[in-house]
Formats: sequence, C-alpha cells, structure tokens
Amino acid sequence: MAEQLEVNEKTMQSVVHMAEDARVASLKLARADSNWKNRALEAVAVSLEKHAAIITEQNALDLEREHEAGMSPAMLDRLALNAHRVGELAGALRALIGLPDPVGEVMRGSTLPNGLRMQQVRVPLGVIGAIYEARPNVTVDIAGLAIKSGNAVLLRGGSAAEKTNQVIVRIIRDALYATGLPIDSVQSVDEFGREGANALMLATGNIDVLIPRGGRGLIQSVVQNSRVPVIETGEGNCHIFVDESADEKMAVEILLNAKTQRPGTCNTVETLLLAKGAKAAPAVLTALSRAGVTLHVDADTREILPEGVEAVDATEEDWSTEYGSLDLAVKTVAGLPDARRHIRTYSTGHSEAIITNDLINAETFVRDVDSSAVYVNASTRFTDGGQFGLGAEVGISTQKLHARGPMGLEQLTTSKWIVRGDGHTRS
Amino acid sequence: MAEQLEVNEKTMQSVVHMAEDARVASLKLARADSNWKNRALEAVAVSLEKHAAIITEQNALDLEREHEAGMSPAMLDRLALNAHRVGELAGALRALIGLPDPVGEVMRGSTLPNGLRMQQVRVPLGVIGAIYEARPNVTVDIAGLAIKSGNAVLLRGGSAAEKTNQVIVRIIRDALYATGLPIDSVQSVDEFGREGANALMLATGNIDVLIPRGGRGLIQSVVQNSRVPVIETGEGNCHIFVDESADEKMAVEILLNAKTQRPGTCNTVETLLLAKGAKAAPAVLTALSRAGVTLHVDADTREILPEGVEAVDATEEDWSTEYGSLDLAVKTVAGLPDARRHIRTYSTGHSEAIITNDLINAETFVRDVDSSAVYVNASTRFTDGGQFGLGAEVGISTQKLHARGPMGLEQLTTSKWIVRGDGHTRS
Repeated sequence: MAEQLEVNEKTMQSVVHMAEDARVASLKLARADSNWKNRALEAVAVSLEKHAAIITEQNALDLEREHEAGMSPAMLDRLALNAHRVGELAGALRALIGLPDPVGEVMRGSTLPNGLRMQQVRVPLGVIGAIYEARPNVTVDIAGLAIKSGNAVLLRGGSAAEKTNQVIVRIIRDALYATGLPIDSVQSVDEFGREGANALMLATGNIDVLIPRGGRGLIQSVVQNSRVPVIETGEGNCHIFVDESADEKMAVEILLNAKTQRPGTCNTVETLLLAKGAKAAPAVLTALSRAGVTLHVDADTREILPEGVEAVDATEEDWSTEYGSLDLAVKTVAGLPDARRHIRTYSTGHSEAIITNDLINAETFVRDVDSSAVYVNASTRFTDGGQFGLGAEVGISTQKLHARGPMGLEQLTTSKWIVRGDGHTRS
Repeated sequence: MAEQLEVNEKTMQSVVHMAEDARVASLKLARADSNWKNRALEAVAVSLEKHAAIITEQNALDLEREHEAGMSPAMLDRLALNAHRVGELAGALRALIGLPDPVGEVMRGSTLPNGLRMQQVRVPLGVIGAIYEARPNVTVDIAGLAIKSGNAVLLRGGSAAEKTNQVIVRIIRDALYATGLPIDSVQSVDEFGREGANALMLATGNIDVLIPRGGRGLIQSVVQNSRVPVIETGEGNCHIFVDESADEKMAVEILLNAKTQRPGTCNTVETLLLAKGAKAAPAVLTALSRAGVTLHVDADTREILPEGVEAVDATEEDWSTEYGSLDLAVKTVAGLPDARRHIRTYSTGHSEAIITNDLINAETFVRDVDSSAVYVNASTRFTDGGQFGLGAEVGISTQKLHARGPMGLEQLTTSKWIVRGDGHTRS
C-alpha cells in the first residue's frame, strides 16, 4: 500500500527548479525538426564511442563498490559496461535515428460544415520522469527516446550505477550543447539519492508522466505512491493454454521457446494450462523437464506426468508468481472456459497464448482474453517493440489507459487540436 | 492536497463485489454486437419517455428537499427534470445509436516478415466509475456512452439527485434485462453515500478508469485522492490573444461570442490578452462592457480604457480564475512572446485563441501554445465533441495522457494486439 513520501523541502525545491528548466528546454526541443534531433543523437553516439574508456573506468568503480556491498552476480552483470557494450549503446541510438519522428504527424483532419479547418496533430508530452535501477543502458535508451520524441527528461538511475550514469549524462548534455539543443533536455536527479525519486513522484504539474523501469518492487512502489501520472510497464505473468486439439510438435516448440529462450524476460510463459485430455500434454511435459524446467504441478497434472518426469507440487502462490527462471506452473483445466477463468484471475494482462487446431477455441480465446497481446499458435516471447516492428521501445505497458502493449516513440506523445477559422463564432 | 480516504470495511467490500459483478457483465457486454447495444439504448429511451411522470415525481421530491436545504436556484435548475427534459434525455440516447461503434475497429494490422499476422484491435476499457453531482442527465449520458462502448459502469450521482437517479438507474437496468444484456452493466453506489465515491477511488484493479464530472472542487478532489486512474475533464481557464494586426470587427464578434454566449461553460474565455497598440482593443473593450461584462483590468489596460467603459482593477488572483460568469480578466502584453508566457503560467490547457492577420504570429501561436485546442480567428466556444463532429462527449480532457480535448466513445476504449501464427517461435 501507499507510504507517505518523504522529501525535504530543499530537495523538492531543487527538483522543481530542474523540472522548470526541463519545461523551458522541452518547448525548444518540441520545435526542433527531425534532422536536428537526429544530429544530436548521432553526436551522443559518437561521443559515447570516443569516451568508452572513461565510461568503463567509472563503471569499474561502481562495480567494485557494489561487489563489496554484496550485489548478486546477475545484478552486477546488468550493471557492467565494457567497450563492446558501449558500442551497443551507440548502435541503439543510431537505430533510433532511423525511426520516423512521431512529432507533427497529422492524426486526423477535416473541414467542418461551417468551414472551420480542423487538424489533430501529434505533439510531445513535455517533461518525462524516469525511475530505474542499476542499468546504465536505460540512461541512454530513455534519453534517446525522449530526445527523438521531443520531450525533456529527468532521470533517477539508482545509486548502484551512480558514477557510470554521471559520466553518461555528462556526455549526452555535452552533445546536446554541441548541436545547439537545450542541455536541460536531459538532467539527472541522482545527486538527491532516494529523495530525488520521491520528489519526481510528487512534482505534479511539473512532470507530465513518470516511467518506472525495473523489478516488480520498484514499479509497484512508483505506481502506488506517485502523484504524477505513471505508465506501468513490464510485469508479466504470461499463460499458454494447450487445448485438446493442439498439435504435439507445435506445442512442444512453442513451450520450449516461451519458457527457456530467455527466462528472465517479462514475456516468458509462467503458467502452462493443459486441457484435460490434451494429446500434446505428455510430450510437452517431457520436453520441458528435459530442458531443465522445474514443473510446479497441480494434482490433476501429477496424475498424467509421464514416466521419469519429476515435478514439485504447486501451491496457490505459484499461480501468481512471475518466476523469471526455469520454473513453470502447470495446471490441468476442464477446457477453454476454465482456462479463461484462471487467466482472468491470475494474469497481469501482459501476453497469453492458445495452442490449438480448433477454430472456435482460437476465436473465443482472442475475443475473451483481455491482455495487451493475445496469441494463437505463437510464442508469447514476441511481445516486444522490436519484434512487433515498432522500433525501440520504452517498455511494455500492462495498463489500459494511454498505451497498451509495446510502447514506442508514439506513446511518448499526446495530441493537440489546431483549429483555423475566419472569424468563426458559435451559434 | 490529498486527504486520507475513509471507507468502512463493509462498504468497501460491497463496492468491490459490485465491481466484480460489473466485471462479469462487462465481459458479456464486450461481446455484444452494435445492433444489440443499440436495441438496448432504444429500449432505455422508450422507457424513459414512458415513465416520464414517475421520473418527474421523484425529481420533485429531490427538488423540494434541496430547496429546503437552501440549494441555489442555478443548482436547482440543473437538478430539475420535466417531461420536456426527459424527452431530451431519450433524444441523446438516440443520437448515440446513430454513432459508429468503436469496439472491434482494427486500428492497424500487418503481416510481419516472419509471417505472423498482427492486428491491433479496439476493445472496451472494462469497468468505468463515474462520480458526478446533482445532474441526473449525466446518469443517462454516462450509462449510454458506457453501454455503446461496451463498458460496465458504476455510478455515484450525489445525494441531491438521489431519488431521481434511483428511478433512472432502475429504468436502465430493466431495459438491459428486457433486451438480454447483463443488468449489472449499470449499477449505482449511491446507497453508500459519500463513502461510495471513496470506495470507487480505492478500488484499484476492480475499476479501470474513474471519470469525475462536475465543478472544480469535485474534479480536483478525485484527481488528488483516487488510486484508480482518473481522466481529468473540464477545467477551463481559456485565453484569447488579440494581436496588433487583428481585425476590429472579427475581434469584437469572437470576444462577444466566447464570453457571453454561455458564460458558465468550460470553453468560455476568461482572460483577454491585448497586444500593446492593438488597433482592435478599444472596440473590443467597449463592446464587452456594453454586453454587460465586468472587466478586470491591469494598469496598462486601464490607461487605454475608452470613455465611458468601466472596469475594476485586476488582482493576481484574476489571472487564474475561471469565473463562469460575465467577468473577464484583461491584460495588456508587450506582444506574442509575452502573451505565450502568460498563457503558459495560468492556462489550464483547455482552449486558447489568437485573433490576428499576421501569418507568423498565427503559426507561432499554434506551434507554441500547448493546450488541448488552439484556435486562429475562431471562438474558443467550439471546443466540444458535438461541434468537433465527434458526437456525444464524455467530457473535455485537459490532461495529456490517454485522451486530450473532447472525449467521445473512442476514448472509452483501449486496444489489444491479436497475433496469429502457425507455430511461430522467437529466434
């Protein structure tokens, strides 16, 4: 539940001042054409490459401190940058340069019967706040997406990556300066520590939207405490339902892909629902077990476990767990309506799939399952801005307002109506 | 600022149960085709007309009680229904029947290089909450919009209209029943009084979006206290800037229209910005004064007040006041940049206009003023779903996320990706 956010007055004032500077910067950035913004992105990319040694040097200091503080090897790996990874950051920015600029798109337009000329035009949101953890690549990603979409951004990158982020933000601001865009388009509130994040969450009116990126704990804390509108991303308790008619080979391939290809991602399957009597069930369970997946099964599934396949008993908690590991909850259901009910109860609304050869089941599933992406005979792993052909993504929204599913540049914009008349008055 | 929302546990449980019933209803409603939903709307319209006598009878009881409690004549008028007004409610529903159904629209679609067939389809949001005040027409409006867009709705209509709303909700539910749609698509939480509103604001996960409709106090209280996502509507501190080149006659006509046509509406102009030396200034000030408008002027404007035009001195407070009456703040500014700064400081982001014959000023104004609607040489009074050709409106969003400007049926929807494959796995 919500806690009381604590921020001392001086920090709050400082962050509000930064947000005001960001607002002024955003007004200039909103007017910059695509060529100009792309030149700035290229300048950042070049400068990152040029300063790779300094970046990795600072990163080593962060790594050393966090290693001593007992950070897990997986987290240390996310924090680590080497020359190759710095090159990838530059590459991501160059990919952004290639994407169309959403700003200025005329979304619709018409001339009304009274002669008023109407246009609904895409414009930047304004000032974005980003709160994330120990992943310096997010600093470059979010700053790049913000610049390209004409938004200013305030970053809170977490103390673990403090020195790395500091040098990266410096490089970005220098590149903005060199290309004539306002440097306050990208600012960091890291100097205020945890209070910086709290101040962002309280800066109603100064920050237009807050994007949390990180683990479930971080995201839920921001969603529950922020007074600034939040876009919730990335929580994925994804389901695959294998019905009676599912093709055995297809079911095996999709399940292996959805569970084992990259188990830590939010579009990985976490619960397998097997229709009672599904002919693909034994092969799927065997293949998953052989691939090293720990199956957490209900009583009905235990009864059909093939010889030599081991499993642990599922508890109620398993149905709502996003493992992020080679674990999979497995439940046998009576059929599609039962599967739908289970999904409705436990899903986070990210991605769900049905494996079937039954047309009515397929159509019913896509109609009645209410998630950001619903699949027929394909792996949930496809839910991703790049895979969907949307280009770079800010994250995958699991909420329904503003954006749902993979969010690209477009989702960092809003619209405004431009109405031109010749002295028109309303009668 | 935020207060602690108080709800006793029993009320909270009851409202959550109602929201769960609404969720089940919404799943059926989401599957109903347009013809079916239109038949239900027609049945509600017919039943309202048939039961006009009962409605006005109950309304008379509300009016009597509120009159005795000292409600203002203006508020009593908003609360009052007679046979003619009941007919208008039915007419509004029939207008809704004529609008296209947003549900099922394919927003985009493609086949990816790997053969995956992608569709982004428009779907209902699910369960909507509405909190409003003493205006029984909103009960019919919101219920109608919800049904047409496939959403279930929980209504909190305020104690002043309690008996009127009770009979209207009964009529709507009977009509839903008669046409075979789930009756729990439309429910009222009025029985729980003020706590019902609080429970709606706390029902995270059970209610997808909360729409407040009413005065500034109501809307701000919901925005600041709700844990459920809110769509903020209707606060309008609108500006018109008359520049040096503005045509005198056009400026007079637009100002008179924008201020006096219906002063209580949110798209009425509240501040007039006059460029120093604007040739239209004297005629505009004279015309407004003659039309009975009380001018609240700054020192520079006082110096150019024409003979016989009276005015009071503006205070800092005037610049941020949404009068809702025949009052107008007037400030003389150095030019467009000064006008933009004033608008940026005081505007609620609803609607702003420039009256000009200068092309650069016009283009600069529409580019740099960041409001839901920006006008050149037209009255701000046009910001309205009906006037914009969008049909019935839920309200006018002054926020940037999800919806901006007049909100129609489309803004009560979200999207989902439907992805069809043939055993596709991610490589």
